[in-house]
Amino acid sequence: MSKKAAGDARLTAALRESAAAVERAIDTLLPLPEGGEARLLEAMRYATLGGGKRLRGFLVMETAKLFSVSPTCAARVAASVEMLHAYSLVHDDLPAMDDDDLRRGKPTCHRAYDEATAILVGDALQCRAFEVLSEHDTHSDPLVRADLVCALASAAGARGMVGGQMIDMLAADKALSPPEITRLQTLKTGKLIQYSAEAGAILGRAPAAHRHLLAAYGRDIGAAFQIADDILDVESTSEELGKAAGKDQASGKATLVSVLGVERARAHATMLAEQAAAHLDHFGENADLLKALARYMVTRRN
Amino acid sequence: MSKKAAGDARLTAALRESAAAVERAIDTLLPLPEGGEARLLEAMRYATLGGGKRLRGFLVMETAKLFSVSPTCAARVAASVEMLHAYSLVHDDLPAMDDDDLRRGKPTCHRAYDEATAILVGDALQCRAFEVLSEHDTHSDPLVRADLVCALASAAGARGMVGGQMIDMLAADKALSPPEITRLQTLKTGKLIQYSAEAGAILGRAPAAHRHLLAAYGRDIGAAFQIADDILDVESTSEELGKAAGKDQASGKATLVSVLGVERARAHATMLAEQAAAHLDHFGENADLLKALARYMVTRRN
Repeated sequence: MSKKAAGDARLTAALRESAAAVERAIDTLLPLPEGGEARLLEAMRYATLGGGKRLRGFLVMETAKLFSVSPTCAARVAASVEMLHAYSLVHDDLPAMDDDDLRRGKPTCHRAYDEATAILVGDALQCRAFEVLSEHDTHSDPLVRADLVCALASAAGARGMVGGQMIDMLAADKALSPPEITRLQTLKTGKLIQYSAEAGAILGRAPAAHRHLLAAYGRDIGAAFQIADDILDVESTSEELGKAAGKDQASGKATLVSVLGVERARAHATMLAEQAAAHLDHFGENADLLKALARYMVTRRN
Repeated sequence: MSKKAAGDARLTAALRESAAAVERAIDTLLPLPEGGEARLLEAMRYATLGGGKRLRGFLVMETAKLFSVSPTCAARVAASVEMLHAYSLVHDDLPAMDDDDLRRGKPTCHRAYDEATAILVGDALQCRAFEVLSEHDTHSDPLVRADLVCALASAAGARGMVGGQMIDMLAADKALSPPEITRLQTLKTGKLIQYSAEAGAILGRAPAAHRHLLAAYGRDIGAAFQIADDILDVESTSEELGKAAGKDQASGKATLVSVLGVERARAHATMLAEQAAAHLDHFGENADLLKALARYMVTRRN
């Protein structure tokens, strides 16, 4: 087995292991209640458990290891960012937004339940994400908990993810320039990925310089991830993706792929992945999996 | 002027003054940005500024005074709970939920903008509420900030407000017993009102016994408030309320008013208001306005 193949196998195993740990954490953090709101919790579990790459969760788990943070604490933060991400998918899939029927190979939440339930599921998942971060079990130092809440809220709000989604809705069939596309994607998906990479440093009370390196890494793999996603949308089938494929082209949506073409977009993503990996040189071998992840962003098939 | 009339005038003035302070805080905390997301911030301001009784904000401001908390800090927490409340109204008004056209005498958010924008406005307002609580300016002690986040999330999530809304949607035209109605309303509106009354104690790092008194006060006025709201729905016009009136009856919704009749429901609310006021005896004259508020809950006209 070549060194690269061995590295890929190690990354794939680590991704699987981390995803299972995050899945267990979500399962514990979203127990089924009795009473009328059981349907709500059941739908929250439907929207968060059983699938997804858990990329954001993996970033939290792996960056936390760099600072010897307890995996139990890291898994709570990973679960929380995955709940936040899941809420955004549930709301983005709604008829008034992207109107999607398929997500992670299953009917979207409003299809499996109904629209009102899906709105409430998203609302409650966002709330639970912040609650988990603020609870004592996440970290004994309340400053760490408050910082985690503040950083997540900043990444997920009007100046982050939700702001990006708003720009995306408004831009539906407009021609955007590459800088405009990059800004939209930075807000819509980049900020949350960057937060996930920084979370380990926050949990580990790392020096500011280390947190900045991880933020830079997160920014670059976030951008690479988005370009790779747009390439997959062009080159894959819906079956491979577990969600609708070819949507960007059909809807006339501007992406770096539509503006630069697949090959130049791929070259740009590869450059970003290398740049992301370079930010982690300081951490030596401990960051090998995170570096492998950066390259995997560009070569992944779903 | 009788003692009661003087007390009422003092309460009305205090409500007006507190509402203006909360309004100014929201105005500062939601500045208009440049760029594509300007529409989002503009709609967030539309949904939160310019009206509303600011009952929850008043509770934060007044309970904070009991513990000599800085009004600037209290106003941030008051603004945050009003943003959380506003988000819940924006989502409750959506076509897939209550499908309302009028709120605080203005077109609802999805009517003034569109459905996608209204979904995002609610999402971003919830996020901003937690962000404001977690920021250093809210309190220099990070434990206070983490506690504020945790208590708000617990009141607003699947085991609180959103859970209550889910039960409400499922109960749409079912006959409910008085205990079932009470539980629904405790979750849907009671928990957030209780949080608002407790917030002053959290900000003031008050002894647990004081916090429990305020929680008990909050629970009772929350229940009284809801019954009064249901009575107003029966007895007022849409013009007086600034939102649709007579809705509960038209939709066959079970309320304590529909089950007990207006007079017995009013008597129950009056008892709850007296009980609420009694919890505050410990605080002496400092709690006079909060006691007056409890009684005002039952006598208010909108």
